[in-house]
Amino acid sequence: MNALVRLAGTDMAEVDALIIDRMQSDVPIIPKLAEHLVSAGGKRLRPLLTVAAARASGAEGDILSPKKLAAAVEFIHTATLLHDDIVDASELRRGKVAAHLIWGAPTSVLVGDFLFARAFELMVETDSMRALGILAQASRVISEGEVLQLTRAHDLNLDQATYLQIISAKTAELFAAAAEAGAVGAGADAAATAALRDYGMALGIAFQLADDALDYGATAEALGKNAGDDFNEGKATLPLLLAVARTRGREDDFWERTVTKGERTPEDFARARELVVGSGAIGATLDLAGDYADQAKAALSVLPASDWRAALEDLADFAVSRAA
Amino acid sequence: MNALVRLAGTDMAEVDALIIDRMQSDVPIIPKLAEHLVSAGGKRLRPLLTVAAARASGAEGDILSPKKLAAAVEFIHTATLLHDDIVDASELRRGKVAAHLIWGAPTSVLVGDFLFARAFELMVETDSMRALGILAQASRVISEGEVLQLTRAHDLNLDQATYLQIISAKTAELFAAAAEAGAVGAGADAAATAALRDYGMALGIAFQLADDALDYGATAEALGKNAGDDFNEGKATLPLLLAVARTRGREDDFWERTVTKGERTPEDFARARELVVGSGAIGATLDLAGDYADQAKAALSVLPASDWRAALEDLADFAVSRAA
Repeated sequence: MNALVRLAGTDMAEVDALIIDRMQSDVPIIPKLAEHLVSAGGKRLRPLLTVAAARASGAEGDILSPKKLAAAVEFIHTATLLHDDIVDASELRRGKVAAHLIWGAPTSVLVGDFLFARAFELMVETDSMRALGILAQASRVISEGEVLQLTRAHDLNLDQATYLQIISAKTAELFAAAAEAGAVGAGADAAATAALRDYGMALGIAFQLADDALDYGATAEALGKNAGDDFNEGKATLPLLLAVARTRGREDDFWERTVTKGERTPEDFARARELVVGSGAIGATLDLAGDYADQAKAALSVLPASDWRAALEDLADFAVSRAA
Repeated sequence: MNALVRLAGTDMAEVDALIIDRMQSDVPIIPKLAEHLVSAGGKRLRPLLTVAAARASGAEGDILSPKKLAAAVEFIHTATLLHDDIVDASELRRGKVAAHLIWGAPTSVLVGDFLFARAFELMVETDSMRALGILAQASRVISEGEVLQLTRAHDLNLDQATYLQIISAKTAELFAAAAEAGAVGAGADAAATAALRDYGMALGIAFQLADDALDYGATAEALGKNAGDDFNEGKATLPLLLAVARTRGREDDFWERTVTKGERTPEDFARARELVVGSGAIGATLDLAGDYADQAKAALSVLPASDWRAALEDLADFAVSRAA
């Protein structure tokens, strides 16, 4: 990831300036809450993808449209985080106390709406109806994925295909749209645009699978949220689903109680982690993440070789290696 | 309002069909929750404005773009209702139990996001970047108005100008944008477009002021929500603010306790209503609403005379008379 961050440094500084500028409002609490999240930084991974997709498609010079689309992508992402934290009742986000615990859930909902609307105002400025269509669709698919996850959250019988469908919608769709919009904003041809969309989709799945694995292994510091959050919300992610299948007959009561019924004690996470790690579920999840990372890299082969393409390839590897 | 509903019958049937069609999703709970609100109907006032603005601008034939914009406007409105009900913790909406009490706040937030995104997908289909800009801006202004109201909700010293600023943003902006987008979608000239926007803005303010008055007078049946909701949420609307000013020195303790401190008993609403009605605050609120209705009608004078224009004029009177 470092190569990409270095390459995109100048572009991303301008994207950051746009983000700060467009999160302003005459209503003072809005930029205050938005800044809480935005200044926490996060990886800025999605807008980075938009910029990199534009550059990897050969765009030179100022690329103002892709930069505006990149800022819009970050706003959509931040809006979904704000709404997600309410849905999940999360306590930490990007290593800081979640906004709804400081300003209340109502303000978080409304500031999410503000950022979402601002994202579309930014897209209108680019005058690219295609990019608008891509990101409007992505926003819709994300909400569908979130609802689907919500309705299947505690379902121990969730199969791997449905799980992949959920994370494709709630996570990878925005990665795909971010890269595709960058290509469109840069005037890339159809083959490059499709390749960058495919890259983003596979990369997003790899990232989410690695995140799911990290939730059973990493420290809060590395994760920007508490390890064990998924388990403590009773969320059936792939590592858990695999562990349940692999401990069938032996640990059914434990999973039934902690996930299906949601009756968890603070000590249960340690036991869950033991079972997840011990059953090889982490390894299997990361293997699958690795397959998607390979798929992401392969998609880039239609692009001309460049530093940008190489950095995007590295990013796919990083998605998985950070969790290994 | 009846004249307009009759005139727009055929157009609105097609808008309704679009609404039903575009609220579908592979995730079954989404159309189920959306249908709960959409089938409750409400007045469909905002999409009606979009259609009427297109027709009053002289559009003939199919007006597919204005119809799609009308459906988008209704989706934006429904999304804000879903998010509002969480903000206000309302129990009734459009005469039915509020969605968040049936499906939970998280699902309501996410289905609101779904509808918002769908609205933008519909706008993209019309290929009108101008209409998109108008409705993106309106969505942003609405969220700003909501946050502003939230931060000033229990403030007995809110002055009338700030109050009008809040309702302009949270309510009237969507009326204005709905009418303006209809004109733009119909290819109206600049003068007609500006006139219809001005009409929508003044109409929206008149409607909101009348609603505020109704909250101290009407039955739940007429209102589609409980009378007394505003007071019971400690919301400082204009009738309350005027009553506070007019009973200054006599009732300060009552207002301080029930609004500022939010310590209300179930009996307090009857007393508040007595003070609001007795002080003439309802009459003053409706007088102001009448001024805005006149302003709305005056704005239409640049349009050629037509049944549509006359029906829009009637609607402005209806906005106020329903509460008188």
